[in-house]
Amino acid sequence: MSLIAMPPASADILSRASQIIASLQAVLPLGTVIHDIEETRAYECDALTAYRCPPLAVVLPRSTDEVALAMRTCHELGVPVIPRGAGTSLAGGALPTADSVVISTIRLRDILEIDTANRYIRVQTGVTNLAVTAELETEGFFYAPDPSSQLACTIAGNIAMNSGGAHCLKYGVTTNNLLGVRIVTAAGEIAEIGGTACGTFGLDLLGLICGSEGQLAIVTEAVLKIVPKPEGARPMLIAFDSAEIAGECVARIIRSGLLPVAIEYMDDVCLRAVEAFAKAGYPVCAALLIVEVEGSEDEIRSQTEAIHSIASQLNPVEFRSSRNAEESLAIWKGRKSAFGAMGRLGDYLCLDGTVPVSQLPYTLKRIGKLSKEYGLEVANVFHAGDGNMHPLILFDANTPGELEKAERFGADILRLCVDVGGCLSGEHGIGIEKRDLMPKQFTSDDLALQMEVKSVFDPGWLLNPAKVFPLDASRAFREARADGG
Amino acid sequence: MSLIAMPPASADILSRASQIIASLQAVLPLGTVIHDIEETRAYECDALTAYRCPPLAVVLPRSTDEVALAMRTCHELGVPVIPRGAGTSLAGGALPTADSVVISTIRLRDILEIDTANRYIRVQTGVTNLAVTAELETEGFFYAPDPSSQLACTIAGNIAMNSGGAHCLKYGVTTNNLLGVRIVTAAGEIAEIGGTACGTFGLDLLGLICGSEGQLAIVTEAVLKIVPKPEGARPMLIAFDSAEIAGECVARIIRSGLLPVAIEYMDDVCLRAVEAFAKAGYPVCAALLIVEVEGSEDEIRSQTEAIHSIASQLNPVEFRSSRNAEESLAIWKGRKSAFGAMGRLGDYLCLDGTVPVSQLPYTLKRIGKLSKEYGLEVANVFHAGDGNMHPLILFDANTPGELEKAERFGADILRLCVDVGGCLSGEHGIGIEKRDLMPKQFTSDDLALQMEVKSVFDPGWLLNPAKVFPLDASRAFREARADGG
Repeated sequence: MSLIAMPPASADILSRASQIIASLQAVLPLGTVIHDIEETRAYECDALTAYRCPPLAVVLPRSTDEVALAMRTCHELGVPVIPRGAGTSLAGGALPTADSVVISTIRLRDILEIDTANRYIRVQTGVTNLAVTAELETEGFFYAPDPSSQLACTIAGNIAMNSGGAHCLKYGVTTNNLLGVRIVTAAGEIAEIGGTACGTFGLDLLGLICGSEGQLAIVTEAVLKIVPKPEGARPMLIAFDSAEIAGECVARIIRSGLLPVAIEYMDDVCLRAVEAFAKAGYPVCAALLIVEVEGSEDEIRSQTEAIHSIASQLNPVEFRSSRNAEESLAIWKGRKSAFGAMGRLGDYLCLDGTVPVSQLPYTLKRIGKLSKEYGLEVANVFHAGDGNMHPLILFDANTPGELEKAERFGADILRLCVDVGGCLSGEHGIGIEKRDLMPKQFTSDDLALQMEVKSVFDPGWLLNPAKVFPLDASRAFREARADGG
Repeated sequence: MSLIAMPPASADILSRASQIIASLQAVLPLGTVIHDIEETRAYECDALTAYRCPPLAVVLPRSTDEVALAMRTCHELGVPVIPRGAGTSLAGGALPTADSVVISTIRLRDILEIDTANRYIRVQTGVTNLAVTAELETEGFFYAPDPSSQLACTIAGNIAMNSGGAHCLKYGVTTNNLLGVRIVTAAGEIAEIGGTACGTFGLDLLGLICGSEGQLAIVTEAVLKIVPKPEGARPMLIAFDSAEIAGECVARIIRSGLLPVAIEYMDDVCLRAVEAFAKAGYPVCAALLIVEVEGSEDEIRSQTEAIHSIASQLNPVEFRSSRNAEESLAIWKGRKSAFGAMGRLGDYLCLDGTVPVSQLPYTLKRIGKLSKEYGLEVANVFHAGDGNMHPLILFDANTPGELEKAERFGADILRLCVDVGGCLSGEHGIGIEKRDLMPKQFTSDDLALQMEVKSVFDPGWLLNPAKVFPLDASRAFREARADGG
């Protein structure tokens, strides 16, 4: 993986940087533009911390109009813009380049409207995912997508990455829960797409914006679908002594026609780390499933019985169904702390491929074999119900060459996902992490079509330009455009 | 509403027509191209029968490759192509022009794959909507979108129009149930978008294709999400002596957090026609709701009780809950035959605006007033739960000027929908019917952006070129492009 070459800090470049910063400061309120290297340090990477690069400046607007002023200024000066939410992207989606300005939505924090009668909430997109649901608590509603980072991640980032989460098995990912957006285009114009009560017609630009990783526009406001809270919900824990059999159990639950809210998977490597960290009291086993069902008391009972009957045929080491709120919390405790626990084990690369659910057993077996071949341990913790895998490859960043080896291993796993009928990303996006794997999933014609669509929104390729598309392909595409125009 | 001017049948044009037909016949099997005026008559309109125009020829391919051959031929000759499913569009989406070739998917009828473990079905897109669900019957699954025309309409048409139906309140419209497509582009190239187990990433071209009314590509195969059949389902019937109070009841059910599968609305004009036609035994009232809930026996009971309690506060004329399969059929019988019943009343224009659910009472009242002003009767029968209104404006096509008056009235209703926060189309699309109203919903910048995106897929504007966008705007856009390029 190679970043765009960074220009050396010559006198020319420093003078251009000063001009850009001065132009931004001239149109924006005091304190909105930061450029001191100490202050911009927090923005030099996202959660893919292996890659870092300080931007020219960071803009922290407080309104859509301020975002538009910043975008217009960058557009006039031909400066690349890196849109950023809270910077929790695991794929380097918010990584700056040295010649870019970061525009963050983090100060756009207003809840604008709650309308339970029409089942939506309208927010500025710097609001965090969890804050949206907290806002709806007393109304008996919630916002369904729930990425692991929901305490920190913003709605802007969720829209950019089309984020999912444990509950997406039943409720879908961001695109299924987004009704409308207010955007600022690359040229600094403000537009509305979708609304509070819209069918989709004409061309569905809303779906196109969702998951576009900040390549088409900056989203400053969003209308989100809200969902009534279920009467009750209850998790169960099913432990197996084989990863493959646990995968088979997931496939059988899905095939049966049941629709749990969540089916989460943790393997032994993950479980050891979780036990050491959170002491959740999980059984010792090769693979653990947490299955949550919801509804009325009767419905929960009948679904739990049906899942128990499916699991029993596969001889689980343990089947534990929660009997009360306390036990429910205990079952979820380990899963919720899994990423924190893994962090204590050292450096890791978190992948995000999807596979057809019926391919889970085979894929898990192949990942185990690859792990031995590479000599790198893998922990598996993921949303099994929709086949969205998150293998964590453990490595030591201080050992020269280990990061590169982990990345090669990761690429092999993602290629495996595509080979069995899945795809490169379920919910983290492509960013810089997977851009060079895109040709594994898409033909060059497919990619050209996507780049043409990007060019409609951003003819100058100023918005997050080095992400998603393979660098060679996007450079060739832009050169051909420049020649043609 | 004015169609593209039709060229007079001069000798030049006849010779060009012969050349086009001969070119198509040269690459396609015998019986695939029809051009005799008697044979093409069935293709001169869709379900918006007030507008008719015979095409140059109709192509009925039996495979994706044949679609590609036909498209390539038309592309080389610069002939406009009108994609067509079963022709049940109510908005003129499949209306030909005199200089166009219709390519229909109606002979693409294979079920390619059923995979319950991964919850999808792969079909050729000439398969009808109901045939998909019939195919899944024994597996315990179904395909959720269920337009009223489901016996006849094809998956190709459903994708083109992003079709909905009564059950979409719970399960979403076509775009929420579509996993992947195989398409033929305007240039005759075959491409795949999405797949059987994909997250969305890169740019979401699948969402863009869905609802694009045949403007971007012809979809020849589709991977559809399948949903487990619920344990049981039961409708209830709630009659009110006021349209506004019925609307208020819908708003309160939605606000309560309940999620019925369907909330259907019929007013007195519709009910009289339905009684005369189907003798469903509905009570005499101003407005009738059919609310269906599903789940286990207990769940059905608790939801029915909750809805009964909400309705009771609004003094319904009658509340009738089904006690068995026979009563359930009786409750649905009238609604299912509503469009047939209305047809017997004479000519009607079926609209398709959406409004926020909380605006239903006000919108119904305003439509009543407009009905008096125009002196044209309106029947309301629609999916109330998601605010997708289908006012039917009754008129006499044999009275000169009445169609035009009905169209003006319809435009006023659609403007009203937009004014209260809704939009021009919930599930029928724009077609020719609403193209001139697009500027009410979209700014000229919005429309330009959509047309730019169309141009990426179809640079020559050969695919269904006179639909969706206002003719003036699309002509100006194309001229500007021609000058610029």
